[in-house]
Order: sequence, then C-alpha cells, then structure tokens
Amino acid sequence: MDSLTLALDAMGGDFGPQVTVPASLRALERFPALKISMFGDQEAITRYIPENSPHLDRLTIEHCTQIVTMNDRPLTAVRNRRDSSMRKAIDMVQQQNAGACVSAGNTGVLMAMAKLVLKTLPGIDRPALISTLPTLKDKPVYMLDLGANVSCDSDALLQFAVMGSVVAQKVNKIDFPKISLLNVGEEDMKGNDVVKHTAELLKETTQLNYIGFIEGHQIFDGDTDVIVCDGFVGNISLKTTEGVANLLIEHLRKAAQSSLFMRFLSLMATPFLKNVLCKVKPDQYNGASLLGLRGIVIKSHGNADQDAFFTAIKQAVAEVEQQVPDRIQDSLESILLEKIC
Amino acid sequence: MDSLTLALDAMGGDFGPQVTVPASLRALERFPALKISMFGDQEAITRYIPENSPHLDRLTIEHCTQIVTMNDRPLTAVRNRRDSSMRKAIDMVQQQNAGACVSAGNTGVLMAMAKLVLKTLPGIDRPALISTLPTLKDKPVYMLDLGANVSCDSDALLQFAVMGSVVAQKVNKIDFPKISLLNVGEEDMKGNDVVKHTAELLKETTQLNYIGFIEGHQIFDGDTDVIVCDGFVGNISLKTTEGVANLLIEHLRKAAQSSLFMRFLSLMATPFLKNVLCKVKPDQYNGASLLGLRGIVIKSHGNADQDAFFTAIKQAVAEVEQQVPDRIQDSLESILLEKIC
Repeated sequence: MDSLTLALDAMGGDFGPQVTVPASLRALERFPALKISMFGDQEAITRYIPENSPHLDRLTIEHCTQIVTMNDRPLTAVRNRRDSSMRKAIDMVQQQNAGACVSAGNTGVLMAMAKLVLKTLPGIDRPALISTLPTLKDKPVYMLDLGANVSCDSDALLQFAVMGSVVAQKVNKIDFPKISLLNVGEEDMKGNDVVKHTAELLKETTQLNYIGFIEGHQIFDGDTDVIVCDGFVGNISLKTTEGVANLLIEHLRKAAQSSLFMRFLSLMATPFLKNVLCKVKPDQYNGASLLGLRGIVIKSHGNADQDAFFTAIKQAVAEVEQQVPDRIQDSLESILLEKIC
Repeated sequence: MDSLTLALDAMGGDFGPQVTVPASLRALERFPALKISMFGDQEAITRYIPENSPHLDRLTIEHCTQIVTMNDRPLTAVRNRRDSSMRKAIDMVQQQNAGACVSAGNTGVLMAMAKLVLKTLPGIDRPALISTLPTLKDKPVYMLDLGANVSCDSDALLQFAVMGSVVAQKVNKIDFPKISLLNVGEEDMKGNDVVKHTAELLKETTQLNYIGFIEGHQIFDGDTDVIVCDGFVGNISLKTTEGVANLLIEHLRKAAQSSLFMRFLSLMATPFLKNVLCKVKPDQYNGASLLGLRGIVIKSHGNADQDAFFTAIKQAVAEVEQQVPDRIQDSLESILLEKIC
C-alpha cells in the first residue's frame, strides 16, 4: 500500500470524538502507511488521545470553529457551515491533499456539500449511496441507491448499476459481478415503467453482468452481487430491516421477562443474539459510500460505535487503494462507447 | 351476526384443499351463522372432510373443472380460466350470493379477475392490497398498497388513505385512525413530488386524521394506525421483512449447530423463537384485503397453513359484518363533498 491520507470529520455522529478518535488510532495501528487528518474542535479531539499513544506522527488535528448538526438543512448548511469539520474534511479531498473523507454526520448535508465541492464524474447525473448487506451465503451484497435520489429515471439506474459493479469488482474482488434490479416480481412484465426500461438497457450492456429482477425477500439470499433500485425504495427497504430488528429485540426482551426459565434462557442467549441482530442491522455496522463524485466520501452511521467507524475507515482505505472514482469513470466511458458503436 | 355466506377458492395456495377444507370446517364451528361455498375439485375437497363432521349442512361444494396456477398470467387467466375455482368464487360475490370471497391463489390473477368481475367503487381508480403488520405496542398497523399498483399518483394515495382509515375504524374499531405517509424522512421537504403533494392533499382533508411522514424503521413502532404508500414501495418493504426473518432463522440454525451448549439452548428456545418469527413474517400470517371493489375479496398467502387461512376467513367475516365497501363509498363521497364545498 502506498502512503495515503484520510480526512476525518471528528465531530460527526451521535458520539463525536469519543468514537472517531479511538477508531482513528486503531486505524493508524492497523495500516502502517496511513495518515489521518482529523477536523473538529481541537480540545475535544485531544481529550480522547491517551498520553504516549503510538503513531501520533501520522495524525494531525485541524481545528474548526463550526459543527454540522443533525438539524441542519442541506442548502443552508452548504452556505453557512464553511468552517465546519465536515466541510473542511471534504475540502481537503477536493484539494487532493486527502484520498478520501469519512463522516458520521448529517447525511443530507454531507451529500449536498460533497456534490457542491467535489462535483460529479462526467456521465454521472447524481451521486448514489451504496452499502453492503449481509446474506445467507458467506458474502455480502451491495445495494444502491440507499437514499441519495428520491426519484430516478432509467439512465440514473443504469449509472448506479455501473458504479455498483465497479465497487463490487474492485473493493470486493468479485469477477464480473452479478447485477439485479429490485422489483415487485421476477417476470419481465412485472414492475413500473422505469424498472422495465432499465432492464432493457441493462440487457443491452454486455459489459455488465445483469441477471434480472429480484424481489424484497430475496435481498439477503446472496444469489446476486449488486442490487440496484432508486433511493426512495432503497432507503425504505434498508430502514425496514432496522425496524424488523428492533421489533424482534423488543419481543425477545418481553419474552425474557415472562418467566424465570425464560430469564435464564435469555441470559444465556444474549451475547449470541446480539451478534445475530448486529448482522441484520447492516446500516449501523457498515460504512456507506457516496459514489459518482470526483473524490471518495464515506458515510458512517450516526449511531456508529468504534467498531462501526473503524469499518468505515477501512472502507475508505480500500476505495483509495482501488481508486474507485477513476475506475467508475473508465467503466462508464467504455459502456458509453459500446452504446455509440 | 346475521347469516352470511362466504365463497372460498378451495384450490388456491401451495396446499389447496389440505389447508382450505380443515380451516373452513373450523370457521363453521366458530361462526354459527356462517355458510361456506367451496369451489374446486369435488373429489379433492371431499377427501379432506372427515366422516360425521358437524355443520356440513352449512357447507356446499361447487365443482369446478379448472384451477388457476401460480404460473398463470393475469390477462390470459381472465380469458381462459372462466370455470376456475377462483373465478367462480368471485362470480358468486358479484351475483350477491356471497358476502365475500377468500383465495390463497395467484395474487395477480385474483386482482385482475376481481377488478374485471366486481368493478371498482365510484371514485376509486384502482383497488389496493391492505394487511396488518405487528408493532411494538399491543396493536397492529394497517399498511397499503402492498403491491396492487406499481405506480401511483397523489389522488391514488389519497384514496388509499380513505380506504385504510375506513378499515381501521370499522374492522379494528379505532376511533379517527391516525394516518401516516411512508417516506425517506420526517421533514416536509423530504421525499419525491408524489409523496409531498399527497401530504398537502391529506392535510386539507379534515375528515382524515393525517399525522405526517414516517420512515421505514418506524413502520413497526405502533405510533400510527394506517401507513400509506404506493404498491411498489409497499411490496418491497413487506417482502424485505420476510427476507430479514429468513436471514435470522438461518443464522440461528447455523449457531445452533456450533456447539453442544448452543444445540441445547436452541432446543429450549425453538418454540418461543418460532412464535416471534411468525410475528415478523406478517404477510404469511394475515389475510390481505383487496380494497376499493364493489365486493369483498380476501387474499391469503400462498404458503398459508390452516391457522393463516382461518385468519383470512375471520377477516372476511369481519369485513362482511362491517360492510366495508359501503363504508368506503360513504367516506369517499363525504370527502369529495368537503373538497367541492
């Protein structure tokens, strides 16, 4: 691995430096060539750096006077939060002084700032949010868009397919990744006009391995590598997953209180169940990438703990190593050329 | 309860008469005023009626020469399956000889046949599929549309809100039911144009208790009574729920095999976990209603077991008792009048 620098928004997320600083120190330990610039309140950040920490020569702190809050609106924040930790981290990527930025802050503001500062790649209309979900097989599946675009036409969905395919191939090392379109049925006649037209476009594109429609209950089957949908559907499907997990936790909690035997059983099973339930709350345990920009932006969940924020940093490192934006641009150009010829 | 007659498609679903006949006998036992007409292959139906069964005076069998299969396409089946058990059951409702029909057969064909034969109510453009989902509180939430309409405008979503409100009020006895729109955020500015415009329409309608947007992870919170969305989103959200439950079952199964202690734990916990997982696979355990027609049509899941098909019959009885289509028509007329005045 060549030397790489990441720009981290230290203040984002529910826990701020309490989570982002220890996760960063762990990342510096793990990746010997990594350099990290942390943006945020210098005093708050320093508080979480233990004395005599190793690798501090590879950590710099960039003091910022502003913080993006969860209540900030994208358009207002873009104008009024120019000295925020989030904005400064994105600026560093734009100035090519960092390979990627990572933030657990306000998703809407992050998307708006990243799009304004970094701009989209040629041929990409709007960036999309991608993440991995667990499956029944021993491999994750990529899904996009998870909420960056609330209405999409077929061209946008085709661009998502290209971007998802590149990430699955480069980051997850899958040769010719299988791509599926999320729909209400598997047959050609099923679905709305946008989905049906996208299927036609994907079938014509020999450089993508499109395998057809899949339904909501098949998302976790592991029979495909990339699931493409518009951001409205993707966001609701992902958040439904979180809702089901919460419902289940509550049922288990209630049942555990119903008898002494159930209390015993619950006590024994808790560590295991916690592990399983983590797996079905994917958005809280994986970093999501904002794809289609001229730079790498990783979004960690607002609730992210140290493990989750560390995972987001690892995702950033992998995308920098694979130069994901360049690969997306290559792939798009090649597909557009195929369509013209 | 006055005397009521239901028309049942005995052949629908994965198990046909093996499930539909015992569930019907149970319903006859439960509802003393109920009469059932079972449509299907006479010999296959008779096979599952034990000798000396009580209440057979309230059961009639109507022999049909055709069956709608899961592979039948709606438009073809409407033309070519006129002597099918499904079609004949719907015909009986249209002829006003039955108060409702129940089928566990092909959903697409059931919707197409029901719409053709029964027609929609005045003011309703297309029927919608509604069902209840479990929540964290001790009450279910209604959600529609679950897949009858893959693209909807704001007028359609408003009609869904009216229909959902009527069912929640009449069948579930909720006074002035709270209505929410499924969206990617809670703030007014979030979502696509259709959802935002529907919110405006709902706010203007004083006869509906619209309380705002909810997100996917809030579906199961129990803070609302009716969740409105288009059929594409509703279908994918519901089926995602099924996918998560399957993923969880598989993780539990694998974990149970990992050690002797886990095997013991799993053996102890199985009955309880099965019960919980049933609750998070709502579509398999509740009947769904096709609303907006001039007649009552209940769709049971294809996988329905005796309990699930019995639940669908109970749902039919409740809707007949409450004359749901008439109440929807009253409510729609009243709302349209409010808008004109």
